Amino acid sequence: MTTLAGLTDALRAGALPDGTSLASLGERMHARVAELYPLPRSLTGPGVRATLDLLGESLAGSATIERHEVPTGTRAHDWTITDEWTLRRAWLTDTSTGDVVVDTDVHTLHVVGYSTPVRATLSRDDLLPHLHTLPEAPDAIPYRTSYYHRTWGFCLTQRQLDGLGEGPFEVVVDADLGPGHMTYGEVLLPATVPPPEGEEAGEVLLSAHLCHPSLANDNLSGLVLVTELVRLLAGVPRRHAYRVVMAPGTVGAVLWLSRNADVLPRIRHGLVLTGLGGPGHLVYKRTRRGDRGVDAAVGHVVRRRGGEVRDYSPWGYDERQYNALGFDLPVGRLSRTPHNEYPEYHTSHDDLAHVTPAELTDALVALVEVVDVLENDGRPRNLAPYGEPQLGTRGIYPTTGGRAASDAVMAMLWTLAYADGDTSLLEVAARADLDFADIRTAAATLSGADLLDGLG
Amino acid sequence: MTTLAGLTDALRAGALPDGTSLASLGERMHARVAELYPLPRSLTGPGVRATLDLLGESLAGSATIERHEVPTGTRAHDWTITDEWTLRRAWLTDTSTGDVVVDTDVHTLHVVGYSTPVRATLSRDDLLPHLHTLPEAPDAIPYRTSYYHRTWGFCLTQRQLDGLGEGPFEVVVDADLGPGHMTYGEVLLPATVPPPEGEEAGEVLLSAHLCHPSLANDNLSGLVLVTELVRLLAGVPRRHAYRVVMAPGTVGAVLWLSRNADVLPRIRHGLVLTGLGGPGHLVYKRTRRGDRGVDAAVGHVVRRRGGEVRDYSPWGYDERQYNALGFDLPVGRLSRTPHNEYPEYHTSHDDLAHVTPAELTDALVALVEVVDVLENDGRPRNLAPYGEPQLGTRGIYPTTGGRAASDAVMAMLWTLAYADGDTSLLEVAARADLDFADIRTAAATLSGADLLDGLG
Amino acid sequence: MTTLAGLTDALRAGALPDGTSLASLGERMHARVAELYPLPRSLTGPGVRATLDLLGESLAGSATIERHEVPTGTRAHDWTITDEWTLRRAWLTDTSTGDVVVDTDVHTLHVVGYSTPVRATLSRDDLLPHLHTLPEAPDAIPYRTSYYHRTWGFCLTQRQLDGLGEGPFEVVVDADLGPGHMTYGEVLLPATVPPPEGEEAGEVLLSAHLCHPSLANDNLSGLVLVTELVRLLAGVPRRHAYRVVMAPGTVGAVLWLSRNADVLPRIRHGLVLTGLGGPGHLVYKRTRRGDRGVDAAVGHVVRRRGGEVRDYSPWGYDERQYNALGFDLPVGRLSRTPHNEYPEYHTSHDDLAHVTPAELTDALVALVEVVDVLENDGRPRNLAPYGEPQLGTRGIYPTTGGRAASDAVMAMLWTLAYADGDTSLLEVAARADLDFADIRTAAATLSGADLLDGLG
Repeated sequence: MTTLAGLTDALRAGALPDGTSLASLGERMHARVAELYPLPRSLTGPGVRATLDLLGESLAGSATIERHEVPTGTRAHDWTITDEWTLRRAWLTDTSTGDVVVDTDVHTLHVVGYSTPVRATLSRDDLLPHLHTLPEAPDAIPYRTSYYHRTWGFCLTQRQLDGLGEGPFEVVVDADLGPGHMTYGEVLLPATVPPPEGEEAGEVLLSAHLCHPSLANDNLSGLVLVTELVRLLAGVPRRHAYRVVMAPGTVGAVLWLSRNADVLPRIRHGLVLTGLGGPGHLVYKRTRRGDRGVDAAVGHVVRRRGGEVRDYSPWGYDERQYNALGFDLPVGRLSRTPHNEYPEYHTSHDDLAHVTPAELTDALVALVEVVDVLENDGRPRNLAPYGEPQLGTRGIYPTTGGRAASDAVMAMLWTLAYADGDTSLLEVAARADLDFADIRTAAATLSGADLLDGLG
Repeated sequence: MTTLAGLTDALRAGALPDGTSLASLGERMHARVAELYPLPRSLTGPGVRATLDLLGESLAGSATIERHEVPTGTRAHDWTITDEWTLRRAWLTDTSTGDVVVDTDVHTLHVVGYSTPVRATLSRDDLLPHLHTLPEAPDAIPYRTSYYHRTWGFCLTQRQLDGLGEGPFEVVVDADLGPGHMTYGEVLLPATVPPPEGEEAGEVLLSAHLCHPSLANDNLSGLVLVTELVRLLAGVPRRHAYRVVMAPGTVGAVLWLSRNADVLPRIRHGLVLTGLGGPGHLVYKRTRRGDRGVDAAVGHVVRRRGGEVRDYSPWGYDERQYNALGFDLPVGRLSRTPHNEYPEYHTSHDDLAHVTPAELTDALVALVEVVDVLENDGRPRNLAPYGEPQLGTRGIYPTTGGRAASDAVMAMLWTLAYADGDTSLLEVAARADLDFADIRTAAATLSGADLLDGLG
Repeated sequence: MTTLAGLTDALRAGALPDGTSLASLGERMHARVAELYPLPRSLTGPGVRATLDLLGESLAGSATIERHEVPTGTRAHDWTITDEWTLRRAWLTDTSTGDVVVDTDVHTLHVVGYSTPVRATLSRDDLLPHLHTLPEAPDAIPYRTSYYHRTWGFCLTQRQLDGLGEGPFEVVVDADLGPGHMTYGEVLLPATVPPPEGEEAGEVLLSAHLCHPSLANDNLSGLVLVTELVRLLAGVPRRHAYRVVMAPGTVGAVLWLSRNADVLPRIRHGLVLTGLGGPGHLVYKRTRRGDRGVDAAVGHVVRRRGGEVRDYSPWGYDERQYNALGFDLPVGRLSRTPHNEYPEYHTSHDDLAHVTPAELTDALVALVEVVDVLENDGRPRNLAPYGEPQLGTRGIYPTTGGRAASDAVMAMLWTLAYADGDTSLLEVAARADLDFADIRTAAATLSGADLLDGLG
């Protein structure tokens, strides 16, 4: 059976342990994004359920998505679950010409999310206040919702608006908005390595929002990546349990938090995953406190991969809920170029071309490296601390003096220099300016030569 | 009645609460500098008393300046109050031509401060050692004193010296130098908001030196600004008492310290004010320890206004005395371009043109912002800490999703994210990269919506 | 008798207290490097003993080098003392022409260190695997050893190899390799100033490796500098003992550590000295922990002299052994351009031209400045802490006001400002951005005026 270290090293070397190349892994993930893209997701409704169905299938038996249905009107801390919205179709026709101006069967973004049902004929002047465009991006349909203010509307490109006829217009939002349920999904991969006696296995929380319609990077990339990660982690021994929450943004996260008070104390690390398939380097957003274990782990991996680490801010995705003062969970956020910083954000240009197999794969490898740190970090102790041990007699040191010691030798020397039982391998990696995986390998070599113990 | 927050917000918006524009406020302060400019100030003497008289009048009844007269010969820690110097007039005439070369009625800088009385006729060669110029600034009269070494002298421009005739010269220093008093002024604005039970109201010390003759930036700017600040603070409720010391430099500050041992333990924050009317951005010089409350407060305001923060050094103004090890008071210094770094420093070019209404006003607003922090900072507690509270239902959140949350919303979110009862609003402002006043406003809004308590 | 402060100030001013110029001091050290250069040093053997003899003579009676001979086969922590190698001569002749290709009488680097004795005639093809060159530096002979893998070999320039004839070749390594001794030298200069009652005098460890053949910078510079330093320190009162270890690299240091368990607890500070005579600014490599007293002291001196401070790494010289977890000694390393970063490193180009009198002298002055800090730092207390004391009345302040206070006055003001009995003079120097020696002088002046005590 492959270990997580073996899985990580294989991915770093360019393939899955079963030989699947990184390229085909990327194609597989991109194909799943494409399947999910047309589904009419929103805060609630059948698009959410269909998305969970497809994601569940892609797990291929390695794990199951438990679906939760919570009645509307349920109280969740400061929030109340709002009505369920079932959109069948919405369209806008110019009755003077018979032209269909917009139709959600063409693009799910054409209707304002949570539009109230309507079927009417309006003059051009009465229609205009219900139309939304992006004048600065005249070919893009904007993404608009109105969850808590009852209204209806259509989104279209500025060019469509510029060519709009004189009407009158038939508007139809064929939808239900009323009592029902909010839906979210949850996956639990239990820990398989027994914790030390008297301790309880911790959990790692992975969270991706589920409420965006046809937006590929935000957040189909997160949903597909977390699903693929579950497939990989299902096949290796695990010290932590891995809990995936796929819920509508904000209120869905608060809802999950309100129903899992018993789980929260077990969460050791967490990550919100979003915007991981588009351009730009990786960006890690720290937890609110900024000094949690996940900050060190993800910060290390992201920096080593040329990415960027930023401080917390109370704007963004569901990290805002997990980090709220009353929960104070150690949950960071991993993305590439964050929301609001790329022009395709929340428009129809966040499409299947915006997300690439290569970026998805790169993010997946980064996630596996993060899990490698979370699972395999330790605070070993040097068993030969009186001077540098004679590595040569143990067959792990070059016998002819040269100008440079190899990285592998340096990784061993760094580990021996700081393995005092108190310093973590991740801290050694940071001092050494080497990847965690290199230090983890060195520690295993030293442990095999009886020069180190306490790797657990 | 206006509050300090209201006063601050009004000034930030461009006017006093009574509608006085910043421009006319600046003209008023500049006019006061002009009134004080010709008075013959020195370490002691009638120029000091006349200065306190004029400053007292400008307070217009909002507060009074208590004048202290301490006999010469009095011991003040390591120092002894030196003789009082009363200058009536000093001049220098070329008897061969009858030309008056210099005359203190033309400029107070023409005589070396504390010149001994003299009335004599000297040859050119005997006169020259008593003349001081600035060859590198040939149009400027230098500022020179000789407090502890008994001598006399004249200061003149290099061009005057270059044109000096053959003499002989009549020199007259019509002055008294002997027993008398050292004079300093003190203003106390008491606290008006009762402190929490069992606590004593703290004091804020504001100090400006009083001993410089016709030098507009150093230090008429400080004297006029602190007086204007007192006028403004007199009209608002105050948690702290505000104590202003206007004393001769060095020995005057030590004298005040020696006579106020009972006051020192109440001083929570302090600022020396000098050089605030000339060009250049604001420069805050930290306290000796560098980590006091005043360092955080003034550092924040100065940085937000594009200014600069520097570490302590034992060179400069009376911050040296307040920070001396035996007192260890939390007193920083606020200026613009510090002494020695602008060419007009300690010359006749530090004149009424060197100081502008706009710079005076900018400094005054900065001072009010500092007091706003000192008075209104707090460590509130989020009352809805389980997730982000639904601001929309409380009427303080935009209902249609857009690309950016306004600064006001962000200020509320930052405050909620860190209001744990231990983090100060100033710390929140620093994390948020927003002005303290914005966070203070957000906290008030949240407090009004019962989402926050503990603002005190 | 000169004090260390006097010695330091004299060197900073350009000469020894006896008037010897820095230039002739540099020439003297360079001449010693030249004497030692041709001796056939290795891990063991007669070249090591001859080196200790010459260094001992250069001490000129000011101290003695104690020579230690440890039998081969002795265990030293993880290491075992390997066989002794006695090289008489090694050469390689092309029998077809009679040409001597290489000969250790011409350059000691021509033989691989620890080559097994051999006397044979080989074909060109059989010889080639035993020849080592540096293709990227075709005029340089490389330095190669094979301490633990039994083989033999010759080192030559790439140009020599390119011109090699057809052979056959006579190879002779006239050497013994077998049981014997490892040799190291030790100097102890005892403390001469009695420690405070109840305390024990600490030691300063100075270490230079002894095992390199004709390499002038690495490490004849270290051996010659430490010897000169001992000569200077022998003539001044000392609070610490100074212990110099001249031992073969790695195994020699471990051997010394294994035989001096009683000494280790007394070591307060330590420095490995190497590569100090070649080009480039000074480079200080911190101790493993990075926050020891020696880090502050050497860091200060090196930075003030335009040098550079780097973090610890487990690669380099014997600092690796002293800092090993089981010993954890506060030993940094001082060099110029470190090993591996200059092209002459470990080649015949690290010769007498690569090392200059000026660089040796500069390093010596730096070392004396470091010892000045280690000996003379203290935590004095300001005896006139209530305001700035009136320096003028004590004759140590200029009586006429001017634009700038001299550095000497500033050094006094900085010292008074922070002399709280807890802050060290070195910390004051860092805050003041002045040399330690300037602050040490100011503290002595203040102490002489009864304004400071506790200098010890």
